[in-house]
Parts: sequence; C-alpha cells; structure tokens
Amino acid sequence: MQDQYRHWDTVQTRWGDNDIYGHVNNVVYYAFMDTVINTWLIANGLDIHGGEHIGLCVESHCNYHAPMAFPETVTAGLRIGHLGRSSVRYEVGFYRDEELIADGHFVHVFVDRDQRKPAAIPDGLRAAMEGIKA
Amino acid sequence: MQDQYRHWDTVQTRWGDNDIYGHVNNVVYYAFMDTVINTWLIANGLDIHGGEHIGLCVESHCNYHAPMAFPETVTAGLRIGHLGRSSVRYEVGFYRDEELIADGHFVHVFVDRDQRKPAAIPDGLRAAMEGIKA
Amino acid sequence: MQDQYRHWDTVQTRWGDNDIYGHVNNVVYYAFMDTVINTWLIANGLDIHGGEHIGLCVESHCNYHAPMAFPETVTAGLRIGHLGRSSVRYEVGFYRDEELIADGHFVHVFVDRDQRKPAAIPDGLRAAMEGIKA
Amino acid sequence: MQDQYRHWDTVQTRWGDNDIYGHVNNVVYYAFMDTVINTWLIANGLDIHGGEHIGLCVESHCNYHAPMAFPETVTAGLRIGHLGRSSVRYEVGFYRDEELIADGHFVHVFVDRDQRKPAAIPDGLRAAMEGIKA
Repeated sequence: MQDQYRHWDTVQTRWGDNDIYGHVNNVVYYAFMDTVINTWLIANGLDIHGGEHIGLCVESHCNYHAPMAFPETVTAGLRIGHLGRSSVRYEVGFYRDEELIADGHFVHVFVDRDQRKPAAIPDGLRAAMEGIKA
Repeated sequence: MQDQYRHWDTVQTRWGDNDIYGHVNNVVYYAFMDTVINTWLIANGLDIHGGEHIGLCVESHCNYHAPMAFPETVTAGLRIGHLGRSSVRYEVGFYRDEELIADGHFVHVFVDRDQRKPAAIPDGLRAAMEGIKA
Repeated sequence: MQDQYRHWDTVQTRWGDNDIYGHVNNVVYYAFMDTVINTWLIANGLDIHGGEHIGLCVESHCNYHAPMAFPETVTAGLRIGHLGRSSVRYEVGFYRDEELIADGHFVHVFVDRDQRKPAAIPDGLRAAMEGIKA
Repeated sequence: MQDQYRHWDTVQTRWGDNDIYGHVNNVVYYAFMDTVINTWLIANGLDIHGGEHIGLCVESHCNYHAPMAFPETVTAGLRIGHLGRSSVRYEVGFYRDEELIADGHFVHVFVDRDQRKPAAIPDGLRAAMEGIKA
C-alpha cells in the first residue's frame, strides 16, 4: 500500500455521506478526491481565492472495491500520473488499513481565472507535482 | 442530440452546486447521474426501501465539456450501454439546449439487499432496461 | 396553504438526499431554502457572479413536521417576514399537496462584495421583496 | 471557550463546502452538527444500522458569526441543553481558536425504527447525555 502513492492524507466521513443503503454513497468519493487534491494544491501554493490560475476538472473516474460507512475515517493516497504543460492527472486511492476501498483519477486543466483559457501550470506547483509523480 | 439517448429527464441545480469558481462543481454531476438513473429505476419497479435487490455502483466516470451554473436546469439523456446478468452500464449525457455539457457512465451490480452478493437483475427491470439500450 | 406564502416554486429531491433512515436528511432542507431564495433573488436582479452586493446568511432555522423521500418533488412557498435596511428575513414552507412538511426562516444581511460590510439592499431587490411581504 | 461545551471534536472542511462567495456555505454547518452529534451518539452506543431506536431531527437552528473557508479544520463543542423522555436538545458551537464562528441547536426525538413512534431514549444513551448536560 505505502509504495502505491506518494502523498497521504486522511478524510473524515459525515453523517450524510451514508445513503439509504447504509454506506458512503458513490458520489461522495469524488468529494473526497476533490478535497485531497485541492488540499495538496493549496499547501503547495495554489491560491483558490485570488490566484491568476485555477485548475478545472475535465475528467474523473472511480472504481469501487468495497463499501465503507460513516463514522469511518479513510486514508487517501495521492500521486501524479501524467503531467503535461497545462494538464495534470491525479490518481487517488482510498484505504481502510491495507484494504483498497476505491481508486480513481481526476484530470485538471489549468486555465487563467478570467478568460478560462488553458495556461501553463505555474512553476512552483509543477515542481511540487514532479515530486509526487508515480 | 435526441438520437443519442433513449430516455430524457431534467435536473435542477441548487445554490450549493456552484463552487468557488462560480460553476457547478464536478462532483455534482455524479449526483445528477445517480438521481437520473435511480429515478428511472424506481419508475420501472425498483423498491429502494424494502426491495429484495438493490444496485450498487462499482464504477463511474465523467467527461466535462463545458461549464454550467446554478440556477440552470439541465437536460439529461439516459441509455443502457451494456446489460449483463447482474450488472448494467448506464450512459448519461447532460445538455444545455443542443450543447453537450458533460457525459459519463455508471455501472451497477445488482445484489440481494441482505447478503450483498451479486444477483440477477429482476425480470421487470431487465425488460425496461432492454427498452432503452443504445 | 396558498394564502400562507406569496411566491411558489418546486424543488426536486436527489438520490443522495435520502439518508440511512430512508428519508430526506434534515440538512438538505436548508439546501432547498438556499435554492428557493437565491433562485428568486436572481430572477429579481441579484447578480451572484459580479454584482456589487451579495447576501450573507446570518441565521437559519427549520422545524420538521413530516418526512419526505427521494424521488419526491416538493412544493416550496416563500414570503418576506421582515425587511430592514440591509437585512431581510425570508420564511419558507415545504408542502406535499396540502400537508406542511417543514417550515423555517433564513436571514440575509446584504454586504458589499469586496469589504463584506453591511450595505443597503439594492432598490430593485427591495421593491421585489416588498411585493412578497407577509 | 472550553467551559462553554462539554465534549469536543474537530471537523474537516471539503472543497465543495466553499460556495461561490468563497466561504463555507451556511447549509454545511448543519452537516457539521449532524456529524458531530451522530459521531458522539455512535461512540456512546447508538446503532444506526440496526438499532431498535433512532433519533429523528424535529428542529434545527444556526447563528453565523464569522466566515470560514476550506481547507480550514473547525473545532466543535457539544453539550446537551434539554433532556426529556424521548427528546433531546443538542447545542453546538464551532470555533477557530478562541473565536466563535457559529453556534446552533438541534432537537432529536427518539423513535422506534419501524413504527417511527416516539420512544424513551435508551438508558445507556441517556446516561451518556446526562454526562454532557450544560
């Protein structure tokens, strides 16, 4: 498990994450991905409130291997799978101890905030991304 | 557009769907998919409260082509892409007029509610699914 | 029912609104309130993307009288209960046919977007608000 | 601050909690309340999956004093404000360091799971609730 991803975080579940079938709804895993990725981006320099460049999601995907349920806390692994000029593919795995609960990917295209045209990933972020490449 | 999907529905956006960047967050499209699919399943006989069989999501995917924002209402198209004994692949497209905003897929495995072991899709649902195959 | 509120709207439920107990989670009613209120504000001139003034919620409240569940659509009534210089109290009721499911209130203070200091409610909005006062 | 509540927890924010105005949406505070309360209930014996008794929310309320934003983690205080035979009022405060961000209350009526008729709060839970009364 530890060698599968390059950065680790934990994510709390919430009461409302459980759906009528008693486990965390499939949609919520994407909220986890979005949170793990953006927490890491912000910690590495992304300014979501006023920065010139922002990342927009153009593709996301998830495979679900086992259920989990509130009030569990989940361990999330993150790595960069592809790093282009303006786009980046994040890969995320969710674990309960050593068991892989779900894994997926998420592609950001960086754009300038006002025009929303593709733009090169800022140097500082790019260097950080290189540091967690698969 | 009309020939791309076999069943049509509309989905309202909500205030909280807009994220800090001013458009509907990528996660929310999966809530739309889940809603369109389950609304259709319930209308075609699925009993989510007490039925013997339920559908669990094992894979989902979305490609995002253009932004949208609350308070828009989106048009959703649904078709069945693959229909197995216990699994079914739904394909969903979201439109603003004729413009494809996003499209994705979602795979359910049907299981018995108590044991959560794969089970054949009930006959009534299967017949309905055949009716909206691609 | 019809004489209790001054503006009417409908709100769709979503799959994920149902919690583990099989009905719409209490939290979701506030998402409904926020949506009904902001839909009305936008229709009456509020520019949430770039307008000079925005409404910030300083208080909200809800009483729950009966359950509802996805895939129901709910009817929502809206009226203005108090209208001050910069603050406004909205009152919202949710109905299934003639049955009151839940009702609550929500207080906005209008502020200028940049400084977030209280500001007079814009004249156009104020006139519209006068039109739906209790 | 420490003497205002009797039980303390922390709650992570998520990317999607920030709304278009750049701070945690008012609705989300109720998801925090629901989570803090149910986490405490489960830790003190509530079985949300199969237990005979469940708590249904009949009233909730929140006052918002200052904004917060993802990726902040918030400190939550919990106390019991009123404890009846079948109903209980929880009071919750959210803090950033010593600053009160928001506070509110939430009333549960305990019911039997099947009939949804009011029922006495189970003895074990009641004893725990006595332990965090204001």
